[in-house]
Amino acid sequence: MKAVLGTMGDEVKVFGFWASPFSRRVELALRFKGVPYEYIEEDILGNKSPLLLHYNPVHKKIPVFLHNGKPIAESLVILEYIDDTWKSNPILPHDPYDRAMARFWANFIDDKCFPAFMKAVMGPENEREKAVEEAGDCLKTLESALNGKRFFGGDAIGMVDIAANFIGFWVRIIQEIAGVELLSADKLPALFKWTDEFVSCSVVKESLPPQDKISAAFKARIDQAQTNTRP
Amino acid sequence: MKAVLGTMGDEVKVFGFWASPFSRRVELALRFKGVPYEYIEEDILGNKSPLLLHYNPVHKKIPVFLHNGKPIAESLVILEYIDDTWKSNPILPHDPYDRAMARFWANFIDDKCFPAFMKAVMGPENEREKAVEEAGDCLKTLESALNGKRFFGGDAIGMVDIAANFIGFWVRIIQEIAGVELLSADKLPALFKWTDEFVSCSVVKESLPPQDKISAAFKARIDQAQTNTRP
Repeated sequence: MKAVLGTMGDEVKVFGFWASPFSRRVELALRFKGVPYEYIEEDILGNKSPLLLHYNPVHKKIPVFLHNGKPIAESLVILEYIDDTWKSNPILPHDPYDRAMARFWANFIDDKCFPAFMKAVMGPENEREKAVEEAGDCLKTLESALNGKRFFGGDAIGMVDIAANFIGFWVRIIQEIAGVELLSADKLPALFKWTDEFVSCSVVKESLPPQDKISAAFKARIDQAQTNTRP
Repeated sequence: MKAVLGTMGDEVKVFGFWASPFSRRVELALRFKGVPYEYIEEDILGNKSPLLLHYNPVHKKIPVFLHNGKPIAESLVILEYIDDTWKSNPILPHDPYDRAMARFWANFIDDKCFPAFMKAVMGPENEREKAVEEAGDCLKTLESALNGKRFFGGDAIGMVDIAANFIGFWVRIIQEIAGVELLSADKLPALFKWTDEFVSCSVVKESLPPQDKISAAFKARIDQAQTNTRP
């Protein structure tokens, strides 16, 4: 009943930013489930909308997910809600231990990988070398977490793959621009192969922004960050 | 079947630290569920055990939860696992939206409240004033999240209450030692009342460490932190 309710007549909205891997997570989950949604682009760098601030007064950030008028913030919380609400094509495993592992790795990506990677390419110059090492260690850890599987979710894309979309798509672009090589076929063959598999999936491919637009946007942001943090 | 399996003949172990509100979360959840467990005290300040490092190689931190030999790290991930595995006395609500809200507030406590509070009492001296303000804002936000309810979980203690145990027990002790008043009956009447209700619950009361031992331990830690960060 819930799955039917979930896919018919519901009002589903996503407040996001085109270049954000976090709102992309929400969109990917909805696309895998086949849930139609309205996408609302937010000007997060300049002028956040009153609606965004109303729906996410605590963090004032995208993504915000709106289901029949009820707001949810925080991308991993939203992914769990989507999986709890629309039962088809589960993104979390059924087994409690496997679910725990999925949550562990999704949190690892947010708490360790993402901050280390951003610091490695945009952080203060004197902290960048250490951050590159940290980001490299994070990716090495993810390589071992794949443990011979095609996706983190096993044979199909699941919550960890969706959470890791910035590694699957953004990292290979950004490291070229920043001149930092963290992820390569030589260094991390399993994770590199995963990025290929991930972006080759048709649902993912259709959902991602154009690569040249991402390149240009990140180039501008990295140039700015590196100028600002030069001693 | 799972609930029966879960409560009979299982080997459940918790690696924790007596003064940690994070391993306390795991113990509280197990006590609310009535799941017997073996507690293993870790010397996290001096000498972590090879077992801890073996079971949590990524973060090398307590708590570690062990169920029939399978390890799980990260306290909120462990709470979800416990609720997925032992169905009696649910700590997460049944409704998907309420579950999302519980996850949101539990994450808010970890991502915002805890770091702000620690910085406010132990951070570098020149950052302390700003951190006190931030911690105060966090507690104000939690006050509004209570929204007239007895517990964050409604009429009964749930995941957010368990996650917030450091506010229910530790904060009132620590702020006295540090000479910072953030939580009082005047400033935040609902949250202050919640701390009374929380520590009065018999399961909580039996599980908490002695107040004078906590006072002494934090006094030593705060003195040390404040000495180290004096310019």
